[in-house]
Amino acid sequence: MSSGRYAVGIDFGTESGRATLVALEDGRELGTATYEYSHGVIDERLPYDDVELEPDWALQDPEDYLRTFQEAVPRLLAETGVDPADVIGVGIDFTACTMLPTLADGTPLCVLDELRAEPHAWVKLWKHHAAQPEADRINAVAAARGEPWLARYGGRYSSEWFFSKALQILDEAPDVYARADRMLEAADWVVWQLTGDETRNSCTAGYKALWSKREGFPGDGFFAALDPRFEHVVDEKMSRLVVPIGDRAGVLAERSAAWTGLPSGTPVAVANVDAHVSAPAATVTEPGAMVIIMGTSNCHILLGDSEQEVEGMCGVVEDGVVPGEFGYEAGQSGVGDIFAWFVETCGGDHAGLEREAATLRPGQSGLLALDWWNGNRSVLVDADLRGLLVGMTGATTAPEIYRTLIEATAFGTRVIVESFERAGVPVDRIVACGGLPGRNRLLMQIYADVTGRELAIAGSSQTPALGSAMFGAVAAGAGSGGYDSIVDASRRMAHLRPETYRPTAAHRDVYDRLYAEYVRLHDLFGRGGDDVMHTLKRIQRETRR
Amino acid sequence: MSSGRYAVGIDFGTESGRATLVALEDGRELGTATYEYSHGVIDERLPYDDVELEPDWALQDPEDYLRTFQEAVPRLLAETGVDPADVIGVGIDFTACTMLPTLADGTPLCVLDELRAEPHAWVKLWKHHAAQPEADRINAVAAARGEPWLARYGGRYSSEWFFSKALQILDEAPDVYARADRMLEAADWVVWQLTGDETRNSCTAGYKALWSKREGFPGDGFFAALDPRFEHVVDEKMSRLVVPIGDRAGVLAERSAAWTGLPSGTPVAVANVDAHVSAPAATVTEPGAMVIIMGTSNCHILLGDSEQEVEGMCGVVEDGVVPGEFGYEAGQSGVGDIFAWFVETCGGDHAGLEREAATLRPGQSGLLALDWWNGNRSVLVDADLRGLLVGMTGATTAPEIYRTLIEATAFGTRVIVESFERAGVPVDRIVACGGLPGRNRLLMQIYADVTGRELAIAGSSQTPALGSAMFGAVAAGAGSGGYDSIVDASRRMAHLRPETYRPTAAHRDVYDRLYAEYVRLHDLFGRGGDDVMHTLKRIQRETRR
Repeated sequence: MSSGRYAVGIDFGTESGRATLVALEDGRELGTATYEYSHGVIDERLPYDDVELEPDWALQDPEDYLRTFQEAVPRLLAETGVDPADVIGVGIDFTACTMLPTLADGTPLCVLDELRAEPHAWVKLWKHHAAQPEADRINAVAAARGEPWLARYGGRYSSEWFFSKALQILDEAPDVYARADRMLEAADWVVWQLTGDETRNSCTAGYKALWSKREGFPGDGFFAALDPRFEHVVDEKMSRLVVPIGDRAGVLAERSAAWTGLPSGTPVAVANVDAHVSAPAATVTEPGAMVIIMGTSNCHILLGDSEQEVEGMCGVVEDGVVPGEFGYEAGQSGVGDIFAWFVETCGGDHAGLEREAATLRPGQSGLLALDWWNGNRSVLVDADLRGLLVGMTGATTAPEIYRTLIEATAFGTRVIVESFERAGVPVDRIVACGGLPGRNRLLMQIYADVTGRELAIAGSSQTPALGSAMFGAVAAGAGSGGYDSIVDASRRMAHLRPETYRPTAAHRDVYDRLYAEYVRLHDLFGRGGDDVMHTLKRIQRETRR
Repeated sequence: MSSGRYAVGIDFGTESGRATLVALEDGRELGTATYEYSHGVIDERLPYDDVELEPDWALQDPEDYLRTFQEAVPRLLAETGVDPADVIGVGIDFTACTMLPTLADGTPLCVLDELRAEPHAWVKLWKHHAAQPEADRINAVAAARGEPWLARYGGRYSSEWFFSKALQILDEAPDVYARADRMLEAADWVVWQLTGDETRNSCTAGYKALWSKREGFPGDGFFAALDPRFEHVVDEKMSRLVVPIGDRAGVLAERSAAWTGLPSGTPVAVANVDAHVSAPAATVTEPGAMVIIMGTSNCHILLGDSEQEVEGMCGVVEDGVVPGEFGYEAGQSGVGDIFAWFVETCGGDHAGLEREAATLRPGQSGLLALDWWNGNRSVLVDADLRGLLVGMTGATTAPEIYRTLIEATAFGTRVIVESFERAGVPVDRIVACGGLPGRNRLLMQIYADVTGRELAIAGSSQTPALGSAMFGAVAAGAGSGGYDSIVDASRRMAHLRPETYRPTAAHRDVYDRLYAEYVRLHDLFGRGGDDVMHTLKRIQRETRR
């Protein structure tokens, strides 16, 4: 590899897309350009024709993704002043499952005049939560049939995932379903727009669409049991050809070269998911290594050398994160979200609360929380669970509550780490990345104290874009100045911060005792011992009617 | 009774004493004068000699009570312009158990030069909570000996009560104990200062000092079992002569006539307690009637015609509230306190929060709380219980939490009402008084909806002072222009507001369902099913060392 070569990584987030230029030599980030989606998250009404959406819907406009190519990449090139000819690869990552129906040529159904007023023709964003009845049906049918793949998903298929959303289209808009020649992840769709060739990546196929390298998709009989019209969904709307991440999807076509200002023929990597692509960007490429992407929620990506059944994880996919390894995913649905809720609801500001919370000793507040403001994604896999705070007195202060909420999310991570280890998937080292670790020292120290582990932090503050650029470099290959594998790319381009967080010996005992209380309440309220959270939700739903 | 006659009621509160002039004819309040105690609550250091106090201590200066006579009463007379000769009786009420050690002539030990630097020589205020070890000993010894009186106190003697505090003096300051010729309620002490004669009232003796009309005090053997030096505490430091409330304690002596500007010889009623004296002032004089004094905490006073064992009540005392009836007391240790905590901790203001909370429907928030910020006084009698809030999501708002806290205290009251009824003490009507009912319509409506009962509100906003004046009128007697019984006085002088709060039919079902959840969590966390609250408190104590 010669110096002066670059790759572009493009990270498609929930509110914006951001393109980053990365030096292949050492992973240096030369610049980033962001495009704020003009329609953002569409969750109240469609941009056209004043069509109102039901609760729990969340859509996007696929044109916003194209505008990210058209606006962010040229701006990135202009601002960094790099010769486009020195950009040898492009990679993208996306939120997932974010999916859409298209014509055979990739035209999104929602751009057709006759369908633009039809909500089901649009992109269903990852946090579209209206397909719960379909998820319930998938779980019931899978359990009844004893589908073996269910264990790979912690025993529960999510309403956020591909077949829940696809089945909702069939249930509620059979015409849209019939009209769709293809249904695919937006991640794969944007790569298709870049290269002109349709590909399906192993990461989203594995984590969101029940595909596995060894067994492929579930059998048609399973889909037929969901709905006879759904029997051939894979062959009719999808593809059995799934390409491992790390492969090349194709090269920039003339059209996308014109959008971006990059040379046509530039290699483009197979699509990836924002969380999963962060692993190699955070140096996590070997079995036993875990990356925790910490932001509004936590996502845990762990590599293993074998497939094990782990209670309530999100999924395990061979080749899902690093080719040749088993990538395990778990998550906590509320982390930064909960801290933000507290600040919004109870005033104050994060910096002030953190400063005061940092002066407290563990256990001193007498408080404990269950961090289920957004439900529990792993290990219980129950979106209807709710938050709990216990131990308040007249002397309880806002910083004490703030610290307790941080501690609760740390306990939640410990539950996940221990679940993996108990199931025979070792967790040897942990790297944190994402928005929170770099700016919240207290949070990191508490996570170290609670888990009893040394925590490293990724050097990059935008690991998804860096990871995507790394996959772009792998798509190019060593022969073209890139790398031949993501492990090679990670070795040179991914870095850790010099400082780590080590457990404070004096805090371990108190946190072990508080954790024992957390686990008992977790099991009591999360495993059906006391059903108050569901009862409250049921009463709430009825009274809102 | 002729018109133009008055009584003075003096209410000794936690921060101030207030004297009110009341017309005997109809209970009209002509004026009130308040004296803010110069030393207030002494809970950090003594006023002299820079003596620091231990945590949980709360003392007062008895001179502040005398200054209330000297400053508030003359000011009241001046401001109302009433001829002192038309004041025919004086009554007082006090916080309880608020007690002090004195010499044989009533001189408080803390005014002696050699003892003023000794914390145990001062008045121990009701909320002095440092005698918990002594209360624990009293409960253990009573249980071991099978003392029959324990059932009259819901099975638990409080650290706030007389013998806990007296025993703490013996334990920690035996010299002070030895020096004390008398130990008595401040209520009785101020009456002593007015009349020159020592009396002991049946209300504090019954509710705080284990006295009963039929059995007297516990036997000396019980006190000896606590400490051999404590064997004769009743005969050595107290008095077996207990005077029923409604009796005359004596008349104003020359000295106190000079303090107050009232004629010497004016009848003075036996002392009373602020909560209990509120009952007749709120029209509550017949069996089956309950008054709830709602403020920072709730106190429930219920009249019955027989003695029943009720789980976890504060006490039942014959002649304790109205002569000839059994007065039951129960309480909730945190009510307005909890709402104030929320406003302090989470910002906002009561009026705004109430306005927004009033727009919500029951059950709509999906939240539920246990109202134990200050522990649970009745039915569980456990000061170490803590608050709990469950059901939070990212959409939970501050007004939703505020409403949930109000609902939790209403559920707490319903538990108490149902406990009485289950034990065979009917609750036929409920009158609210105190600081909250007059200004918090939402709170009153929620209490009506949750309990399913019509709630009346006392006409007076200062029922303790009115009640004390009523007892002053009874001390004078009908022959002198007063009344012969508190029932007679109540009939003429006590009033209800015209408006009442009736249960909203549409809210009953949801509140019944939420109450079922409340009761289950109440029993789970309050009766040992899950001990997290105590464990958190234990950890908290250890980490604070």
